[in-house]
Amino acid sequence: MSERLILKLGGSVITDKRADCAVNREQLASIASAIADAQNGGFIVIHGAGSCGHPEAKRYHLDKGAAKGGTEGIFVTHRAVSGLNDAVVGALRENGVAAVGIHPLHTCVADNGRLAGFETRHIGKMLDLGIVPVIHGDVVMDLSRGACIVSGDQLARCLAVALSIRRVGLATDVPGVLDNNGAVVPAITRKTVRGLAIGSSSHTDVTGGMKGKIDELLGLADHGIRSDIFHVSRIPDFLSGSGHGGTVVRGD
Amino acid sequence: MSERLILKLGGSVITDKRADCAVNREQLASIASAIADAQNGGFIVIHGAGSCGHPEAKRYHLDKGAAKGGTEGIFVTHRAVSGLNDAVVGALRENGVAAVGIHPLHTCVADNGRLAGFETRHIGKMLDLGIVPVIHGDVVMDLSRGACIVSGDQLARCLAVALSIRRVGLATDVPGVLDNNGAVVPAITRKTVRGLAIGSSSHTDVTGGMKGKIDELLGLADHGIRSDIFHVSRIPDFLSGSGHGGTVVRGD
Repeated sequence: MSERLILKLGGSVITDKRADCAVNREQLASIASAIADAQNGGFIVIHGAGSCGHPEAKRYHLDKGAAKGGTEGIFVTHRAVSGLNDAVVGALRENGVAAVGIHPLHTCVADNGRLAGFETRHIGKMLDLGIVPVIHGDVVMDLSRGACIVSGDQLARCLAVALSIRRVGLATDVPGVLDNNGAVVPAITRKTVRGLAIGSSSHTDVTGGMKGKIDELLGLADHGIRSDIFHVSRIPDFLSGSGHGGTVVRGD
Repeated sequence: MSERLILKLGGSVITDKRADCAVNREQLASIASAIADAQNGGFIVIHGAGSCGHPEAKRYHLDKGAAKGGTEGIFVTHRAVSGLNDAVVGALRENGVAAVGIHPLHTCVADNGRLAGFETRHIGKMLDLGIVPVIHGDVVMDLSRGACIVSGDQLARCLAVALSIRRVGLATDVPGVLDNNGAVVPAITRKTVRGLAIGSSSHTDVTGGMKGKIDELLGLADHGIRSDIFHVSRIPDFLSGSGHGGTVVRGD
């Protein structure tokens, strides 16, 4: 079996965060073409919601959960991000990638904002068969709060651990994690993260922005899984294992 | 908590089985209106594929599974039945029912044609919140065969057992299970089923037709769950617990 990878596409990379659910189809087509060219093993693609889902989740206060009779936001938020998922799957299939979408609302259950149940054997079987599962940040049912948002980063962490994936890549609209001077931080570990002053995302994000991402990735590093954060134009370098000029998050 | 029910809509009721994926929108609107009027507790709606999915599953020989590089049929079959699911969810929501679609391909895993993993806690939480989950027969990944078809009947059985549902209703295009003379068989148990000569479905069906249904329902009866098979026009009678003139499948 060849190396299995997770490639995460930041929501800001595939949507225009300044508008409500504006899919960046040009960018998507270029990413899909890069992925099609580089296919060398089993991939999972995970994408964020960007402007398809974040504004809806905020409007309906899904960060506070959901209660009986107040479930409209679950449907509306899920519909927005599912539509983006359709666009990602469609772009990949147009480029000859055997992509299939997977919606977390349909399969996951959370408790207090963290995933408490996530069947992954069917996703592993898809990889065995050469299918590229395409998963996304989503609203999911929550045993304590009614509903919550799970980020693509949290999903990546669960999938990497469950399916023995050793490398996770995050394609973003910046060249890596940037310090206060705008320079790329080449490596982050639990030892170095405390002294680090990092910039925050200036856009609507209900999942914690860059700080939330790094927390998730340090959790991955604890399991021996390396994460790479790089500019979207460097996807081929990540997939081939070459240097990508970005940030590596790893165990000490 | 009020009584929880599963209402299964036969594929032949909501599609025209003579054509490829012809959704019967008029019938669907009338069913959705009946469900909206009768809402009195927690429902799960499960629908068959009818002409949206069965022809595709046959064309790609999904009854024989799927292998690496030959996964197109999984995508095409799932797309067909997902489109039907969108139509069912849409009709219910237009009538004020808080419906949310759930795709088995996204959540279930099978082994040798039988469900081997099916998280149901999120579906139980949806019922707690007054959401009507809408689930359907689908292609799912199979640990032994690559892929297989799971029928709405098999899903109904799993969900009823997991979520302590005592009554399952099957709305069909006939008034109940018919004997060779065309008369409704009022009750079926394991004791009486052997002496029974039943008609078979004349349409394309990859999940075993009426005989397959009764086998699933006798499995339910073994768990103390009663099934009702009735004409689609009698949905309000089933939901209110009145007589529906159809067939009851129950334990001895």
